[in-house]
Amino acid sequence: MATTETQSSQAAELGEMLENVRRKKPVIHCITNYVTANDCANVLLACGASPVMADDEAEAAEFTARCGGLVINLGTLSTRRIPAMMAAGRKANEMKIPAILDPVGAGASKLRTETAEELLKNIRFSVIRGNISEIRALALGTDGTRGVEADEADLVTEESLGQTVRLAQNFAARTGSVISVSGAIDIAADPDAATCIRNGRPEMKEITGTGCMLSALTAAFEAANPGKELAAAAAAACALGLCGEIACGRMSGPDGNASFRNYLIDAVYGLTPERLEEGAKFEIRQGF
Amino acid sequence: MATTETQSSQAAELGEMLENVRRKKPVIHCITNYVTANDCANVLLACGASPVMADDEAEAAEFTARCGGLVINLGTLSTRRIPAMMAAGRKANEMKIPAILDPVGAGASKLRTETAEELLKNIRFSVIRGNISEIRALALGTDGTRGVEADEADLVTEESLGQTVRLAQNFAARTGSVISVSGAIDIAADPDAATCIRNGRPEMKEITGTGCMLSALTAAFEAANPGKELAAAAAAACALGLCGEIACGRMSGPDGNASFRNYLIDAVYGLTPERLEEGAKFEIRQGF
Amino acid sequence: MATTETQSSQAAELGEMLENVRRKKPVIHCITNYVTANDCANVLLACGASPVMADDEAEAAEFTARCGGLVINLGTLSTRRIPAMMAAGRKANEMKIPAILDPVGAGASKLRTETAEELLKNIRFSVIRGNISEIRALALGTDGTRGVEADEADLVTEESLGQTVRLAQNFAARTGSVISVSGAIDIAADPDAATCIRNGRPEMKEITGTGCMLSALTAAFEAANPGKELAAAAAAACALGLCGEIACGRMSGPDGNASFRNYLIDAVYGLTPERLEEGAKFEIRQGF
Repeated sequence: MATTETQSSQAAELGEMLENVRRKKPVIHCITNYVTANDCANVLLACGASPVMADDEAEAAEFTARCGGLVINLGTLSTRRIPAMMAAGRKANEMKIPAILDPVGAGASKLRTETAEELLKNIRFSVIRGNISEIRALALGTDGTRGVEADEADLVTEESLGQTVRLAQNFAARTGSVISVSGAIDIAADPDAATCIRNGRPEMKEITGTGCMLSALTAAFEAANPGKELAAAAAAACALGLCGEIACGRMSGPDGNASFRNYLIDAVYGLTPERLEEGAKFEIRQGF
Repeated sequence: MATTETQSSQAAELGEMLENVRRKKPVIHCITNYVTANDCANVLLACGASPVMADDEAEAAEFTARCGGLVINLGTLSTRRIPAMMAAGRKANEMKIPAILDPVGAGASKLRTETAEELLKNIRFSVIRGNISEIRALALGTDGTRGVEADEADLVTEESLGQTVRLAQNFAARTGSVISVSGAIDIAADPDAATCIRNGRPEMKEITGTGCMLSALTAAFEAANPGKELAAAAAAACALGLCGEIACGRMSGPDGNASFRNYLIDAVYGLTPERLEEGAKFEIRQGF
Repeated sequence: MATTETQSSQAAELGEMLENVRRKKPVIHCITNYVTANDCANVLLACGASPVMADDEAEAAEFTARCGGLVINLGTLSTRRIPAMMAAGRKANEMKIPAILDPVGAGASKLRTETAEELLKNIRFSVIRGNISEIRALALGTDGTRGVEADEADLVTEESLGQTVRLAQNFAARTGSVISVSGAIDIAADPDAATCIRNGRPEMKEITGTGCMLSALTAAFEAANPGKELAAAAAAACALGLCGEIACGRMSGPDGNASFRNYLIDAVYGLTPERLEEGAKFEIRQGF
């Protein structure tokens, strides 16, 4: 595995991908948890996309059919919502629009793990995006999720990076999905290459919803950039990570995590292609 | 149709209507979506009213019976919630307190359209408030909603204003409700008159929940101003539109849509009767 | 009843209790309403704890088993969620982790009152935290809740303080729970003592979720300070009240309740043990 492509040409692609989101304004259907639904809706609007939320089996697929992308997020999962997820996912596949799975809490409960597995059996996802504990639980069947946050033992560090990239690429090969792993270092991987992203700030773990927002952004980037599944997933992770840095730079005096949440979404709203290209910190590893 | 009343006397009425909300502090029962429920609750508190949220059939009507107004909002509709909406709406009618329908996504799914129609058959709403796509879907049976946002083809412009006023007045005559249409120009219409409101800013479409918040505010204005259904609906639209302008004026530097959301609710909180009277931009068209 | 302990030694305990939260980082399982779930999650993160939200009977107890504390909040109650509350509560008792009940709207509907009573019959709660109307409804069977806010007739004032303390202590004796009553003066009581807290600001009633956030904070303080049920409940109330004061001090110009909400959570994020010790205003009444 080696870094073979130049970062500059890739960085230019990032800017173009953001521009495509702003120009095409994809409508993203989110079947998501009620804790961060508002943040997901506002971050989609911030990046130039539009949210639609419908989670009843009686109408979910019908809404998907009107949209450019779909996010299925397992937070605050209810059994009632599972048939809606299945119907919406199938419709997305039928329409060939990107479907993103955010397996919140996979590994932490039987219901979450089994629902994720059932969805993976029936639906082809463009991207599966989670923290390392969730991805590991689905990739290896390990049961190591501490609530919905990544276990500390599982955090992606420079030491464990190679191993995590391999895990993600193996899981990508098995599922046919891009695997997007969030952590101190973000990873986006398909069987042929992996992007390691060093944007972001630890403060992003001090608000709820950063992961959910990244899944929503990923859907917007995928919807606006067809045929570039890996690059779009990486671009979304660069974008949100960079916005985390921008938001941190805006913190002052009595600002805390509530202000940080606002600044983060504000930064997505104000992010320009140029700024994204300048600020993105990533490395592409070709091969397996 | 002509503008026959002076705006100054109407403007004074706007201030008084806001004062009534602040003085009477109506409690508004919201059966609403989980995406913007928090924003609706905070905007009600901002205007001087109080929110109550209860959406289970086992208790919805009981809560309505303790309230001064009711909002039924079809966002993130679930079939489970429909009987609660029906029971609450009937209780509101029985108690002669204002019921407001926000038919989010009507026209975009069979479930939303049919639920809205079923509610309209069984409940008398003081106000039906939606964007032009939703109102058109219910008024004409057209199926033209792009997700939950108004279709661009449907946007209310100076050119289409007369036609939209006619549509709203016809729908008002058929339903016995004031029809409140949100867009670049807002319209509030009953069979005898229509108010065209030129407050508001395009930025209001860059956050989720502006429409939901307007429906909640409308309920507060209706509850505090009995017998003035058209004027109260128009006042609520002027108030939120003006607050959008005030919020825009507060934007600076890195502020984006998250800050705008906060500034909008803050502006409602700080709105005085005098400021509302000075800033309201509307025209009343008498007749049909 | 008399104030026998010195405030200074108690104040030092407050700082230590906050430090324990930040050091132990308890994971709190919240089964809560969708209106303020996001605020509860962010306030838990602000104080150093972590939120987990899972409300389906199929997985609720499994999540509780991974957590250090549990909050059951009856806001936007649905009959679907009741078995999950019951299972999670029983698991918390089995694991001997603190369970907190927030009986939102008890007294306002039969469903809320009966659900609260059923939970109290089957689960031992460390703390029951509500406004005086809710506590009174459960303690006395009075049906006097105006929506989900305390009735004005029920507000805790200097005049009614002694009577309210007695009510709380009686209810504590009957349930074996600490009773935490929120109002102009907050009270935390067990059968042997009561703490009266004079922190807080009226502006805290102008945002949704202050009570819900206090329940979440209370769970974090209980989880990190085992064996100090009364002191931890009082510490949480002092902390949030003080943060309300800090947030008010930050308000300026066009700031309204949306900014206040952000400042309140920010203040929790920035609260230090020293500041808590200096700012806490409380009195301990020993005896019954």
